[in-house]
Amino acid sequence: MGRSNDGELETKEVDIASVSSSRRHAANEPCVHKVGVPPKPNLLKEFTATVKETFFSDDPLRPFKDQPRSRKFILGIQAIFPILDWGRDYNLSKFKGDLIAGLTIASLCIPQDIGYAKLANLDPQYGLYSSFVPPLIYAFMGSSRDIAIGPVAVVSLLLGTLLQNEIDPVKNKFEYRRLAFTATFFAGVTQFALGFLRLGFLVDFLSHAAIVGFMGGAAVTIALQQLKGLLGIRNFTKKTDIVSVMRSVFGSVHHGWNWQTILIGVVFLAFLIFAKYLGKRNKKFFWVPAIGPLISVILSTFFVYITRADKDGVQIVKHIDKGINPSSVQQIYFSGEYLTTGIRIGAVAGMVALTEAIAIGRTFAAMKDYQLDGNKEMVALGTMNIVGSMTSCYVATGSFSRSAVNYMAGCKTAVSNIVMSGVVCLTLFLITPLFKYTPNAILASIIISAVLGLIDYEAVVLIWKIDKFDFVACMGAFFGVVFASVEMGLLIAISISFAKILLQVTRPRTAVLGKLPRTRVYRNIEQYPDATKVPGVLIVRVDSAIYFSNSNYVKDRILRWLTDEEEQLKANGLPEIQFLIVEMSPVIDIDTSGIHALEDLYKSLQKRDVHLVLANPGQAVMDKLHASKFADHIGHDKIFLTVADAVLSCSPKTVDEV
Amino acid sequence: MGRSNDGELETKEVDIASVSSSRRHAANEPCVHKVGVPPKPNLLKEFTATVKETFFSDDPLRPFKDQPRSRKFILGIQAIFPILDWGRDYNLSKFKGDLIAGLTIASLCIPQDIGYAKLANLDPQYGLYSSFVPPLIYAFMGSSRDIAIGPVAVVSLLLGTLLQNEIDPVKNKFEYRRLAFTATFFAGVTQFALGFLRLGFLVDFLSHAAIVGFMGGAAVTIALQQLKGLLGIRNFTKKTDIVSVMRSVFGSVHHGWNWQTILIGVVFLAFLIFAKYLGKRNKKFFWVPAIGPLISVILSTFFVYITRADKDGVQIVKHIDKGINPSSVQQIYFSGEYLTTGIRIGAVAGMVALTEAIAIGRTFAAMKDYQLDGNKEMVALGTMNIVGSMTSCYVATGSFSRSAVNYMAGCKTAVSNIVMSGVVCLTLFLITPLFKYTPNAILASIIISAVLGLIDYEAVVLIWKIDKFDFVACMGAFFGVVFASVEMGLLIAISISFAKILLQVTRPRTAVLGKLPRTRVYRNIEQYPDATKVPGVLIVRVDSAIYFSNSNYVKDRILRWLTDEEEQLKANGLPEIQFLIVEMSPVIDIDTSGIHALEDLYKSLQKRDVHLVLANPGQAVMDKLHASKFADHIGHDKIFLTVADAVLSCSPKTVDEV
Repeated sequence: MGRSNDGELETKEVDIASVSSSRRHAANEPCVHKVGVPPKPNLLKEFTATVKETFFSDDPLRPFKDQPRSRKFILGIQAIFPILDWGRDYNLSKFKGDLIAGLTIASLCIPQDIGYAKLANLDPQYGLYSSFVPPLIYAFMGSSRDIAIGPVAVVSLLLGTLLQNEIDPVKNKFEYRRLAFTATFFAGVTQFALGFLRLGFLVDFLSHAAIVGFMGGAAVTIALQQLKGLLGIRNFTKKTDIVSVMRSVFGSVHHGWNWQTILIGVVFLAFLIFAKYLGKRNKKFFWVPAIGPLISVILSTFFVYITRADKDGVQIVKHIDKGINPSSVQQIYFSGEYLTTGIRIGAVAGMVALTEAIAIGRTFAAMKDYQLDGNKEMVALGTMNIVGSMTSCYVATGSFSRSAVNYMAGCKTAVSNIVMSGVVCLTLFLITPLFKYTPNAILASIIISAVLGLIDYEAVVLIWKIDKFDFVACMGAFFGVVFASVEMGLLIAISISFAKILLQVTRPRTAVLGKLPRTRVYRNIEQYPDATKVPGVLIVRVDSAIYFSNSNYVKDRILRWLTDEEEQLKANGLPEIQFLIVEMSPVIDIDTSGIHALEDLYKSLQKRDVHLVLANPGQAVMDKLHASKFADHIGHDKIFLTVADAVLSCSPKTVDEV
Repeated sequence: MGRSNDGELETKEVDIASVSSSRRHAANEPCVHKVGVPPKPNLLKEFTATVKETFFSDDPLRPFKDQPRSRKFILGIQAIFPILDWGRDYNLSKFKGDLIAGLTIASLCIPQDIGYAKLANLDPQYGLYSSFVPPLIYAFMGSSRDIAIGPVAVVSLLLGTLLQNEIDPVKNKFEYRRLAFTATFFAGVTQFALGFLRLGFLVDFLSHAAIVGFMGGAAVTIALQQLKGLLGIRNFTKKTDIVSVMRSVFGSVHHGWNWQTILIGVVFLAFLIFAKYLGKRNKKFFWVPAIGPLISVILSTFFVYITRADKDGVQIVKHIDKGINPSSVQQIYFSGEYLTTGIRIGAVAGMVALTEAIAIGRTFAAMKDYQLDGNKEMVALGTMNIVGSMTSCYVATGSFSRSAVNYMAGCKTAVSNIVMSGVVCLTLFLITPLFKYTPNAILASIIISAVLGLIDYEAVVLIWKIDKFDFVACMGAFFGVVFASVEMGLLIAISISFAKILLQVTRPRTAVLGKLPRTRVYRNIEQYPDATKVPGVLIVRVDSAIYFSNSNYVKDRILRWLTDEEEQLKANGLPEIQFLIVEMSPVIDIDTSGIHALEDLYKSLQKRDVHLVLANPGQAVMDKLHASKFADHIGHDKIFLTVADAVLSCSPKTVDEV
């Protein structure tokens, strides 16, 4: 490890070497510095520094430093409940912004919630419940000002898929719901634990590219699922892959489709997409797509009610329980066979929900330039889901679409979530019976128009341009979700992300360096074709820490560069290589396997009569070269501060050649 | 990925900038080079280059290049059977060396084999069988000249432990043996597949430190198991952890220990350890520890035979089948419930055996300076185990102790393995009945003295000195094996190795740079305390590729450096930071998440009125900065070849200050 941040380090030898000093004539000309031996850093300090960088890299205790005890206590409480901090500066003008934003996202979330609950195979009121309690808790504990909390499409689909693999949601409705609450509870526990143990960095292991692919795939899958509601099909497959769904859709063309349903669905879908387009073209009309869904619901419900289209086969919501969240503490499985299932599903759903919430939080924090403590966010999200699981909510998290609307509607603080929560509460008390005649087709249209926003073409194009491997991860996740299942897509996304990391550490790049004309700078001769090689000297740069996973490769690769070079020189009748300079600047660390590889390299070079010279090893590397006596072995005079100094020592003639 | 090896790249802009040219007066003084935009490398070429570096980094097809077809065919055959290559230069003087070495390792392997078979819960002859067929196959296909093939202690123990978890080796002897052959078959298939698919680099993921710890732990466990034979205990625990074994040993003090057995065992153990010591002190006596075990066996067997000590409770071998390996093709489970078990156990045992063989092969290849093709070795080892599983052998691999003896006895080629194989064959035909009266205690002594060599104190001390994290991995593996089980130790070793890689890519180091006096060189101010910061400029070096796993951390860390610096400057009343230079030399690659992080960094810096300047981005990074338009975004004039050039542009006054 050897990450040392203590400021007490001193180098033993920093005296200026006298090599070639006679040729120096101008004051600002270069001279040869020696690479000193850093003194062994204190083990405990080094360990503390490593732990700090790993788990407390955001320095969360900075404000606590040098504060009296009572102030520390207040700061601690404020850290857990940020509302106590920002609440003191709250004023009427901020509330105006929050009120408008809150009302806007409430009008958007009510129809979405009812639809998303269906994705999770739950009754519609559970979606509304999940938009009442969790946002309230988050408003007190969360630190993002723009995120809108509630059920989201991807997590609902994921939870629904994972749960129905265990229990049939139609035949065993009650057990299914109990397992859903159990999973929600453990999703919350997972989130809380990750934040509390400061393991928040684990969500970074799902790369941006993988998330883009996964979200896009999930959006397509969810949209396909909605064909059931949109076409009025009664017997629909339970699988989510595109092949099964398409077979199900076209297998029921002649006896399963309902034209009245299709008419309602398609008309309102067109309206919603047009509303979205309008909102996108002119930022002033951001509220059009936001209230579009509610207007669709009102209009279509009214239409079905007066025409009694439900008697012609148009499926309707039929029943939503009135009243706010009942307690569900007794329903969570704390023992029995479903406990481990609940933990497993909860952990997966919790991690995915977390990834989405953190991504949203970071995006808006960067836009408004405020800091977001990822670990604190996780604690807030975890608490909110734990409480949610006890009050009949399923997994809630930050919603992409509603957060964007929240931001554009001018929200100032998390109070907009409280306003939304209040509206949902009133809805539950007063008007849920009015949703009885809402056609399912309209919910399908709302979900389709919502999830279309998750398909991010532009991001995919950019990923293709920037990094081909990222593109493979993105497409892998996308096709995994679309053609297999949500879990498979997630698994592919994680696997490719890890494969990328492993490839990075297994096969680091190496480059041959040459001297840029009229400078003392040595650079990759591929990137800078006018860089020239120094006769008799081969300069190789290793672009990574030398660890067990790549030490053999690095050694072999350096020897291959040497062999290639010598073959070429021999073919052209040029003098042989006498010095191999390894530029170590990018080699930020080395471990025991790496030292062994260097020793093997040194032995092989000795057999070939080539001298090994090292340029600019860093602090940690220098430390280990000494601890292992390798520095004594090759000779301290073979270690230089820069490549230029090293070249100077190998063949003094070449350095002034321009 | 962007690993590009094609030599056709050109930089577009390499013209010399005219900045500050007036102040240049000597011909060899530095001038400002621009960082050009590398042209987009061809996608197919880039992909081919990546595949080549990943799977064919050792360039195995080099000798085939530019050869006629018939020659290619011969070279192909020779690649599969290296004996056809080196066999043509074989002569009598080489054979002399091989004969002596072969006879020496044969005398060492016969008693070891009988003991190791017991570790694997198999009858003694199976150990001998495994020293007959596999070494023969290896001699034809392997490329190491020094490795001695046969059963080894650690793999025997691992196989025995894993197998007895499935089938009781005493009650269901036949099924147990069938499963052992099945596991051996799939161990061979695993090894062959890894080599054939050129995935040999996977064995590098078990770090040197983890192997040292695992081997040491396995040696202790094996030695403890031998207390059964050494003390003549009849009821012994089946567990391998130290607590269970010690309880078993001391629970039977009063009624289970047999003094005659102890006497024989301890006397010969002392003799063997003395022989080892002698061999170590004087290299001329290398043969003493090598033939010590055989002498012990002969002496003790004769002693038991004439005293009939077996009637006084000294346990003896009793029976060894005469004759060479019977066929076991019919006994391998190719279907049924034990198939998957066999595959699982075989894969684990095969990987461990491979790791050991490759480590040995590499060690001796480095000593004699010849190249070893890891993937070809795996194909040879795999074939040998597949054939072995059909001829009543269990998993064979390279043995540490016997390979060392082989090397010291002056082996020249793999013919020493053929000689050893021949001697074992003769033994099986002629003298196995003579082993009837060999006391088990002597086998225990031989195994103990053999495995003691696997405990490598010196390596552990060196690991402690060089890398503390490696030490944790080493100790984790050691205590995992000793206190839990072989599998647990292996799991811990792999987990810690992976954790290290993940930590490396999640929390890369960063450093603040300063100018070394009287140079244009900028280095870490912690490593070089006389380096001075440039007023108004903060120079930060990022020591890793910026990938999804660390992009957020890197961004936050750079901002934290800036905040810390600004606080300090403010406290001292010094001018504020105006320029942030990010030294990108060690940043060898960047992905989409990394670009996003840079954009976020740029935005944050703009809010703080600090200019972002990049120094020396490499080829792949430059490529992606352009593809993403980030280079246009921050301005091409903000990207420099060196930190010195960047500083020059930020505050022209500072560069000549010495």
